[in-house]
Order: sequence, then C-alpha cells, then structure tokens
Amino acid sequence: MSTEGKTITCKAAVAWEAGKDLVIEDVEVGAPRAHEVRIQVCYTGVCHTDAYMLSGKDPEGAFPVIAGHEGAGIVESVGEGVTNVQKGDVVVALYTPECGECKFCKSGKTNLCGKIRATQGKGVMPDGTSRFKCKGKDLLHFMGTSTFSQYTVLADISCVKVTDKAPMDRTCLLGCGITTGYGAAVITAGKGGIEKDSQVAVFGAGCVGLSVIQGAVSRGASKIIVVDVNDTKKDWATKFGATDFVNPAKDLKEGENIQSRLIEMTDGGCDYTFDCTGNVHVMRSALEACVKGWGESIVIGVAAAGQEISTRPFQLVTGRSWRGCAFGGVKGRSQMNDLVNDYMNGTLKVDEFITHRQNLGGINQAFEDMHDGNCIRCVVDMRKV
Amino acid sequence: MSTEGKTITCKAAVAWEAGKDLVIEDVEVGAPRAHEVRIQVCYTGVCHTDAYMLSGKDPEGAFPVIAGHEGAGIVESVGEGVTNVQKGDVVVALYTPECGECKFCKSGKTNLCGKIRATQGKGVMPDGTSRFKCKGKDLLHFMGTSTFSQYTVLADISCVKVTDKAPMDRTCLLGCGITTGYGAAVITAGKGGIEKDSQVAVFGAGCVGLSVIQGAVSRGASKIIVVDVNDTKKDWATKFGATDFVNPAKDLKEGENIQSRLIEMTDGGCDYTFDCTGNVHVMRSALEACVKGWGESIVIGVAAAGQEISTRPFQLVTGRSWRGCAFGGVKGRSQMNDLVNDYMNGTLKVDEFITHRQNLGGINQAFEDMHDGNCIRCVVDMRKV
Repeated sequence: MSTEGKTITCKAAVAWEAGKDLVIEDVEVGAPRAHEVRIQVCYTGVCHTDAYMLSGKDPEGAFPVIAGHEGAGIVESVGEGVTNVQKGDVVVALYTPECGECKFCKSGKTNLCGKIRATQGKGVMPDGTSRFKCKGKDLLHFMGTSTFSQYTVLADISCVKVTDKAPMDRTCLLGCGITTGYGAAVITAGKGGIEKDSQVAVFGAGCVGLSVIQGAVSRGASKIIVVDVNDTKKDWATKFGATDFVNPAKDLKEGENIQSRLIEMTDGGCDYTFDCTGNVHVMRSALEACVKGWGESIVIGVAAAGQEISTRPFQLVTGRSWRGCAFGGVKGRSQMNDLVNDYMNGTLKVDEFITHRQNLGGINQAFEDMHDGNCIRCVVDMRKV
Repeated sequence: MSTEGKTITCKAAVAWEAGKDLVIEDVEVGAPRAHEVRIQVCYTGVCHTDAYMLSGKDPEGAFPVIAGHEGAGIVESVGEGVTNVQKGDVVVALYTPECGECKFCKSGKTNLCGKIRATQGKGVMPDGTSRFKCKGKDLLHFMGTSTFSQYTVLADISCVKVTDKAPMDRTCLLGCGITTGYGAAVITAGKGGIEKDSQVAVFGAGCVGLSVIQGAVSRGASKIIVVDVNDTKKDWATKFGATDFVNPAKDLKEGENIQSRLIEMTDGGCDYTFDCTGNVHVMRSALEACVKGWGESIVIGVAAAGQEISTRPFQLVTGRSWRGCAFGGVKGRSQMNDLVNDYMNGTLKVDEFITHRQNLGGINQAFEDMHDGNCIRCVVDMRKV
C-alpha cells in the first residue's frame, strides 16, 4: 500500500528539552509539499554539532526538535514541482542546500546558498511550518535535515541523488564531517585547494581533521603536522597520512608555544593551517603558525556562542589570511558526486572512520561514545530500533 | 670635486629622543659599502608611520635616529657589486626591499622580502653598522631609508630606478602612502585586485584611503563607500571617485552600527573593505561589513602596539576573509615603474595629494600640519633648508 500523499507514522529520536536524553517516539511525518522530498532515512551519523545543540549551549537551539544532519536514505515520495530526485532514488541529505539560483549560488564563489536560510535557521520548512508531529505537538526540524527520524522531509534543494552502488552507511558520512574536512583542503584552501608540496598543520584529529589530512595527502602536501592533545590520535593521524604529530600538552619545551614549534618545524611557518577544534585559542595558534607572506588559516570548527577570536593585526599586515568555511566549501548538489566517486575509486577513505555502530534505539549511547578518543564516527542504522 | 668614496657632511632632521621636535643638524654620511647606494634625497613625504615612531609609542622605535621613508632622489655613488642603479639615476627609496632571491621574493605570492629584514628592523645597514654620525655619535637608520637627511645610504635592493621624466616631488609619494592604498586595491585584494562591479568600502580617507579609492575606480567598482568621522573628507573622497560617504559619528540611526549600515547600502555586504585607520575597532567593523560567502577585508592601517583585532569566528566560517598587506603588496623593484607609468599617463592621481609643502627646515611644521583634516600630504624639499 503506497504511503504517497499520506502521513507516515514512524520512530524518531525526539529531543524534548535541552540537556536530556533523546526519547524514541512514534512521530507523524507529513507528506511532502511543493518542492519538498520525503525520504526514508537508512543511516545517519552522529556529530558534535548535534551534541552542541542538544546540550542547550547553542543559543539558537529550540525544542522539541528532531536533530541529525548526516544522513543517507531513499526517496519515498516527492511534492509538486520536484525534478531533481524521484521516488526510489538514493540520496544524501544536505544541511547546506544548493538552489542554483540565488546570488550566492550564482556567484561561483561560495557554497552558502541563501534561499532557505531563514526558515532553516528557525527549524521549519520553507513554507514556515513543520512536517513533524508527536503527541499532538509540532516538532522542530534541525539544519533542514532531521535525520534522527526514520522518515524526514527536506526541501528538494537540500538533497542530492547519489549512486545506489555506494553503501548508504558510508555515504551518510559525506553529509557532514568527512566532506567538511576534505572540502576545506581540496576546495576552500587557497581558493582551489592546497598546492603540491605545501606544509600543512591540522589542529584536532577527529573526523573533520582526519578528512583534512586526506585532502592534503591527495594534493601532495609535503608535510602534514597534526596537533592534538590526545595521544591516541597519533596512530589515527598516521593512518590517514600525517607526517608528524605534536601533542601541545606534552611535547613543548619551556617557553615554547605551539605556533613557535610549528614555525620551527616548517622553517618559517605553514602554508595552510586548519582549525578542527572549535576552540578560539586554538584558532589563534593556527593563524599564527602560518608563514609570513601567504600563509592561510582556515577555521572549520564551530566555536561556542559568544566566543571570539583575536590576534594582533600585524599577523595580517604581514601577509597571513584568516578564512573559514562551512561544509568544506562544497556545493552539495554539484560536487557531492565527485566525493562519492573519490570514495568509490579508493582515493577518499570513508570506511575507516566508522568505529562504532548503533541502532536507532542506541542513539543515546552513540552520543556517549563520542567522548571516547577512539570514537571517530558512530553510524546509526535507522531501520532497526 | 667628486664626493665618491668620501664621507659627506649635510643637513638632516635628527630625532634625538622620543616625543621631541626634530633638530636640523650637520650629519656625516659615510660612503656606501658593498651592495649599498648613497643617494641625494631631493624630496620626501611625511607619513603617520614616521610620526608614530617619533612619538615614542612604537616599542620598536629607538633613538637617536633619522626618520623618513617616502623619498625620491638621485644616486650620488654606489658601493661594490651594485648593478641595479648607477650614479645619476633617479630613484625612489623602498622601505620594502626586493632582493629577488629569498624564498619570499621567489614565491610569487608576497612582496615581503626577507633578506635584510632583521638589520632593517634594528636601524642599521645589512652589515650591522650605521652610515650616519652626528656630534661623534652613530645615528640609527629608519625603515632602511632615512629620507629626512639630504644624503642617505640604502641597500641596493631598497631602491628602484624610475624615469627622470617624472618629477621627484611627486614620485617620492609612491614610496609609501599612495602605493600602499592603490596596491591594496589593484594587487592584494582578491589576489589580483578588485573585480569589475565590486562593492567596496574604504574606512579612513587619508592618503592611503584615497589611493584605495583610485584603485577601486580603476578596476571598475560599482560602489565605493567611504567611511570617515571627519566630514571634510567627503569632498576629498568624491574628488577621487567615491560614490557614497558615511560619517559614522553622525549619520547612523538609533541601534544601527556602521557594518549594518554598509550591509544595507550594498544589499548584503561589501565585496571588499579596507581599513586605512589603524584602529582595531574599525578593522572589526570593516570585516563584518563584508558580504557572506566571499567578502574580503584588507587591513592596511598600522595599529598601536599591543592592540588586537577580534571577531566571532562565525564571520569567517560563513565565508569572509580577513587579510592585510604592507606597501599594498607591491614589489618595489618589479612594479614601481608600472605605478609611475600609471601616473604619467593620467590613470593614477598623485599631484592632488600634495596639500602642503615645506623646506627641510620646516619639517616640524609638516608634522604639525598632518593633524589638519585638509592636509593629505606635505612634501618636503630637502635641498632647501
């Protein structure tokens, strides 16, 4: 019996309030309206951005909400006017949509589509309403994706069709962390990616940082120094292609800071540095570890609300650039399939990130496990409760 | 009688100590050693960077010293091994040298030559000694140029030959302010200059800011908004090609700040902004007035010691770039003659900057006049005392 045009009742992990465990509930998922797509979420990753919002520390977080933004699934039905995907397509959810029509999409200079930004930020669909109901209450959407539900509704511009040959428990991770780091290295840095023989430093060796390493390796960086306060990350970094590892909590000499160490290791400073920590002090170190003249530091990590970065302007006047990106600068609908191809032909590691697995019913444990230094990514099978 | 190889005694404006008037003294200027050039300084500009150092607020300033860095003159003699200029050449002094051999010069990515940076910073010639003596004491050099002396000695890489058809009382100004602003707009911004139809904001309409305007005009910017707290700058800005003027001390509405005003005026934010004030709060406004996705802010002004810039990292993550440059990113020996040509063929205004003139003996008055909003540049005739 077709579900098309009807409300679907399914399981979802609902966040009723900040700082509390998610609750597996029966939720009603409305049919997709014009330019909307309803998908069956098959797999989702669990990301620090979800954890941050759910913790209540994000001043823009609002409840009750269905979180999750790293998902892959199958199109169940489409609303009026949808042409980019159809029923049965395998898709990846895009928290950074791509309309192709707004001034941002048309600029050729950024992936930050502006079309549905305002409503997405408010946790509703582009028409201003929610498709989720539970116990008679509307639930908010999150990042335009809400992949912690077995079915979710997205704007058509928030999903991209990918080959059904790529396993969805891998491609889901291209919906955030891996793409964010890899894209920062191969698309954002230097506005076209890291150049061959560059000297690179990566601060923080989680999913994003390890993905930056991959990007740097693919571009032929000559030195890839990973900085992390957790020694267990050294093996991870090496496995992904880092050439050096520094633990600033243990490896610095008297009077030395991490930027001076990196400047020494690179004979003058790094061509590119990447902050994958969200710590504003680390962001400063990353900038100041750059070489005079052309060094560029990319902020990827998301800082806590109210935190600010600072430095002496002399750092910029002497030629360093301070930049940043979201989703690695990747245009989801135009460029996602390049990344899937890189994965399929072996140049982009994805399998190696999956250290933990859970069913939907174990999603709170997935958040617990994130604090473990050996947990890079937990993939949640949404079809099993 | 030739002075070649001999010490020359001439007049110079000596700064014996911080915060005091300059004193016109007889100084002895030693003969140029290997890879050095002695020039007769014919004209020099007077710049805020001189005033800042002389005030004693610059922690790196040291005394006694001969300041001045915006000079044009004639080569009197050259030391051993000098091949780029010869006796009688008209030259402009370069506080940013260009050796063509160091990793910075060879990178093709920066104008910040590293070859003599250490000694220049210490106020001595590359061999570690001074060429100036007065009353039996060595005087320090400043910025590798010391153009407040009728004769000065430069490293050969710190001067560039220019056509003798260009009047030296104009080309001296290409030694700093004009080049700094114009270069920031046509070389540094966007790593290749402002693109046609860009929307630009310039904070501070002194010599540097007016030169940014010129660069923006030459690149076909569609909107050039000048921000200055001094209303007398409005006419200046307009004369150089600005399309709009905002005085943030008077023109803002209740609850509005300058960045929100600029975002409104440009329907989303500026493509490029330039700080020409040296005020770290202005630098922040300049960054935050940039458009999401690709807006770029260039720090040109030199901040007071210890001052820091700050912003929320979200500004960078959403695609803005914070950059800076010294001497506009212009490579003095390779690119100075392009600017002289632009002046000679009428695309680069220089004459218009000269609002005041003095002889060497009136140099303290030139510093006084700098505080006058209608003083853009004072040119000092060094041959008259």
